[in-house]
Amino acid sequence: MNLLLLEDADFVAADRVVLRDRRLKHMQEVHRAEVGDSLRVGSIGGLLGSAELLRLEAHEAELRITLDSAPPAKLPLTLLLALPRPKMLRRVFQTVATMGVPKVILLNSYRVEKSFWQTPFLEPQAIREQLILGLEQARDSVLPEIIIEKRFKPFVEDRLPELVKDTMGLVGHPGNFPACPRAVTGPVTLAIGPEGGWIPYEVDLLTKAGLQPVQLGERILRVETAVTALLARLF
Amino acid sequence: MNLLLLEDADFVAADRVVLRDRRLKHMQEVHRAEVGDSLRVGSIGGLLGSAELLRLEAHEAELRITLDSAPPAKLPLTLLLALPRPKMLRRVFQTVATMGVPKVILLNSYRVEKSFWQTPFLEPQAIREQLILGLEQARDSVLPEIIIEKRFKPFVEDRLPELVKDTMGLVGHPGNFPACPRAVTGPVTLAIGPEGGWIPYEVDLLTKAGLQPVQLGERILRVETAVTALLARLF
Repeated sequence: MNLLLLEDADFVAADRVVLRDRRLKHMQEVHRAEVGDSLRVGSIGGLLGSAELLRLEAHEAELRITLDSAPPAKLPLTLLLALPRPKMLRRVFQTVATMGVPKVILLNSYRVEKSFWQTPFLEPQAIREQLILGLEQARDSVLPEIIIEKRFKPFVEDRLPELVKDTMGLVGHPGNFPACPRAVTGPVTLAIGPEGGWIPYEVDLLTKAGLQPVQLGERILRVETAVTALLARLF
Repeated sequence: MNLLLLEDADFVAADRVVLRDRRLKHMQEVHRAEVGDSLRVGSIGGLLGSAELLRLEAHEAELRITLDSAPPAKLPLTLLLALPRPKMLRRVFQTVATMGVPKVILLNSYRVEKSFWQTPFLEPQAIREQLILGLEQARDSVLPEIIIEKRFKPFVEDRLPELVKDTMGLVGHPGNFPACPRAVTGPVTLAIGPEGGWIPYEVDLLTKAGLQPVQLGERILRVETAVTALLARLF
């Protein structure tokens, strides 16, 4: 936790918060904070700043907050992601929040097991928890938007072309395709497949919707590693 | 597992192996393999190829092996890594093996907790297990070399300059430094710090040994994410 993220409900006055949960524990056990210490904070959806620890007790802490600086810029990116397996999904939520992805669309795909859609990690509160861990890591305060699209074909045929318009559309796919471009400047729409990859029919539909297949070399990466590697190369 | 990696001890003849462990279970439960199926295999430290499943019983499988192709090239890189916390360490071993790092030197640093050096995940067999998982993911057969250097100063002062010679030496460090270069062609020596970063004294010694500080932007990445992002950008 490189940043203490504050919820609206934490505020007891315009410049005061009281914390009682894992953030209190983290201050006590990891930061080993003491009264008078200054901590980096951010208001979820708002500014970053600093907090002075006014009072620290076993079950709560009170801090005086000054919010004065903008969070880091997001990447100009919409990320389409075939739904990963649940354990990977949680880490991917953290990774996209850390890397600064503003918008993620979770898609179905032939190689996404049906059971993956049943995971409790897709519940809004569970998604939010992982995103917040990722934002705390990166020192960002703005939650990415997570959109769930369980039907591949209608989404890709009917709505994707509009999203891709005026962006560089890319689909990561191993094979005899151009290498993923580097250091792009404009907005990108990037699709990353499931373990085992997209099937040819899906690559076809994604291509028709305006995404060009690109590859990252012959090594097959886990989804989380592929997300990080593609973003680090693109931006 | 995108590749079944074979140990010398698996061979019962020049072109036959018998498997009984997690690889058998994986064939049965994930591949749902049947007699006659062809599987991708690799010989640890050797070539890649294919295997025909000759016999599949509850407790063992026999395969006929043809090894005929070279594993993918490694990156021209020596990675110096401040020892991560144990849970992260395991994933980092997988990640470096997947990404094709040939040599990793685990270093002490001021911000590495002493207890991290006690983890059973640093035992040779435990390291090997994680590396193999990473190789299986990437379809590579060659284990990276993992070197443990528990004393920062003598290593950096006495041995690092020789390692850095004739390579591009870089140390990842947030701050007002040049951005990490992209698409380099020659060999690189790259140092990545612990959670919380190198202390200035360490950056000083690393710089004197020939590593130039470079940064990846204002977002603070977890070690595993930083490793992937730096490698994807460099190569």
